[in-house]
Amino acid sequence: MDDKKKFWSGRIRDAAPYVPGEQPKDKKYVKLNTNENPYPPSPKVAEAVAAVARGDLRLYPDPECADLRRAIGEFYGLTPDHVFVGNGSDEVLAFSFLAFTDSETPAVFPDVTYSFYPVYGEFFAAPCRIVPVREDFTIPLEELQKDDGTVVLTNPNAPTGICLGLTDVRRILEANPHHVVILDEAYIDFGGESAMKLLPEYENLLVVQTFSKSRSLAGLRVGYALGSPGLIAALTAVKDSVNSYTLDRLALAAARASVEDRDYFYDTCAAIAKTREKTAEKLKSLGFTVLPSKANFVFAAHETAPGKVLFRALRDRGVLVRYFDKPRIDNFLRITIGTDGEMEILLKTLADILEDLK
Amino acid sequence: MDDKKKFWSGRIRDAAPYVPGEQPKDKKYVKLNTNENPYPPSPKVAEAVAAVARGDLRLYPDPECADLRRAIGEFYGLTPDHVFVGNGSDEVLAFSFLAFTDSETPAVFPDVTYSFYPVYGEFFAAPCRIVPVREDFTIPLEELQKDDGTVVLTNPNAPTGICLGLTDVRRILEANPHHVVILDEAYIDFGGESAMKLLPEYENLLVVQTFSKSRSLAGLRVGYALGSPGLIAALTAVKDSVNSYTLDRLALAAARASVEDRDYFYDTCAAIAKTREKTAEKLKSLGFTVLPSKANFVFAAHETAPGKVLFRALRDRGVLVRYFDKPRIDNFLRITIGTDGEMEILLKTLADILEDLK
Repeated sequence: MDDKKKFWSGRIRDAAPYVPGEQPKDKKYVKLNTNENPYPPSPKVAEAVAAVARGDLRLYPDPECADLRRAIGEFYGLTPDHVFVGNGSDEVLAFSFLAFTDSETPAVFPDVTYSFYPVYGEFFAAPCRIVPVREDFTIPLEELQKDDGTVVLTNPNAPTGICLGLTDVRRILEANPHHVVILDEAYIDFGGESAMKLLPEYENLLVVQTFSKSRSLAGLRVGYALGSPGLIAALTAVKDSVNSYTLDRLALAAARASVEDRDYFYDTCAAIAKTREKTAEKLKSLGFTVLPSKANFVFAAHETAPGKVLFRALRDRGVLVRYFDKPRIDNFLRITIGTDGEMEILLKTLADILEDLK
Repeated sequence: MDDKKKFWSGRIRDAAPYVPGEQPKDKKYVKLNTNENPYPPSPKVAEAVAAVARGDLRLYPDPECADLRRAIGEFYGLTPDHVFVGNGSDEVLAFSFLAFTDSETPAVFPDVTYSFYPVYGEFFAAPCRIVPVREDFTIPLEELQKDDGTVVLTNPNAPTGICLGLTDVRRILEANPHHVVILDEAYIDFGGESAMKLLPEYENLLVVQTFSKSRSLAGLRVGYALGSPGLIAALTAVKDSVNSYTLDRLALAAARASVEDRDYFYDTCAAIAKTREKTAEKLKSLGFTVLPSKANFVFAAHETAPGKVLFRALRDRGVLVRYFDKPRIDNFLRITIGTDGEMEILLKTLADILEDLK
């Protein structure tokens, strides 16, 4: 055994942790690799944070996060017992695996999706049934209608950007009456339709969202889940078995200020959706296949230039995108939608690279 | 089965989560129930937070938390690969259970200690060997020298305040060469001697500390572990299997500002230790037995008035302390050390209550 690992538990000795997109510090990049929002958060956020920083940081935060849960609930027309909040949607998803999967309740998800799911499955000892997506990256829905485990579905999917409509989501919910269906809607605000509307009808539905993308607060770490009170109570039981206070006073106040500034939120989401559509068109005219995206990124493969070559050439020229060296998607680039100006730099740089490759 | 729990995993269906001290909102209390620091954090904290709030909150934080780990390392004379940081020491402890216990590696800890340990043990399916403390609440050290599991020791212990010296800690480390010894030093800065000094000698030692107590930042949620690089790598593997970004940009900056303001830290810790000694003397003169404490609280039982009666009477009169309705300690009050003024209110109120009970 590796000597470094001699005190390690069985659980981690062979674990293959998630690897987040790189956050390089060597130079300034046009950073289009981790689906951050190019616009700053609502200006109300900094005000709220400064006020709390001058206040009672010496005291524990509210372990029930009542004010934030109420504010999120009000945004969606739900009472606070339908809202769970956590330290980023990654924590909410990890807690969901702990709450709704076990050795007899597998997790069911597509092979091309958020790559943290198989990590959670392995780490928390939940068997996983992995559903291969079709050649065109759409998901064979019949494979998610077997009522044999907890369905976990990123919608819009990552890294493809493809979004299921509510008719399909409803079909999946109907077909799994004995299991939870988790909709990871990290990217829903950029053009998809949230399954949140179906909450009054389905007590097996859990919708997970985040402040990291559409609310420009990746640096804050706040995510949340919306669901029936029984599901929310399950997540709370997990939280209280791991860490009573997952959200600090600054994050609670910042997230609340953000969710209360509705106009700013709608405006920035609309701007990104508009930039996405323009960018997709221009990528196509450069010879890219671009999957239809409802997210704040596009997933694109060039007709001749390999994805890995483009990824490296872009990086060398100061533009960071995300590349997954995995079967089926290793010819694609996942490109975050930045400002119009950033996308012009991307497109110009890509055009130069493609010219050089000729 | 309870209908509310119908989708719950086996793991949580019978879980008994940790219950934190109450954070009542009904009125203003003299709050001496959750071991918060009565002094505000270093004034540098609010400055650092305001600067970050105006900065790049739209971007993910550094998943490696390099700057904060370096700052903590510098404070203790350690390189960053000896430092792990997490979302409160509760998260660091939860990750430590995941990293260093499993079905074949039990957790070993006293019966009177931090009540989150048995919760972690049950939740993460680690067997627990629980060592009864003696009549005087000291720990029978020979029971921690069997090299049969991961030893978890709060030092100073909670809720007793009793602190082991380094000679005893060294004996435990020597006796457990094949197992990790976790020293939970949440309260060490108020008068105990940190086992941190023994790190160069023992690669099985993990010291866990927090910003919540001695650094007046309970509202921030930052904790850390100091240990050999192999142990730190284990905690990092756990983190990267659960949540890549556990600390947000605000918390990272605030904690760093705090750890860099050394004088403020030493001054407030010394003030609290002084108030503790005065308070203990006065409690004794009111007829209390007070266990010898090196923490920012005292654990005290009155010679005639039952703990539960005193707890309730104090609460009715606006003073909150912590009461544990558990065998062996159900006659005690755990009283956080506040300012001198707060302790005068406590002592006066106790004197009044005892007078009324006569």
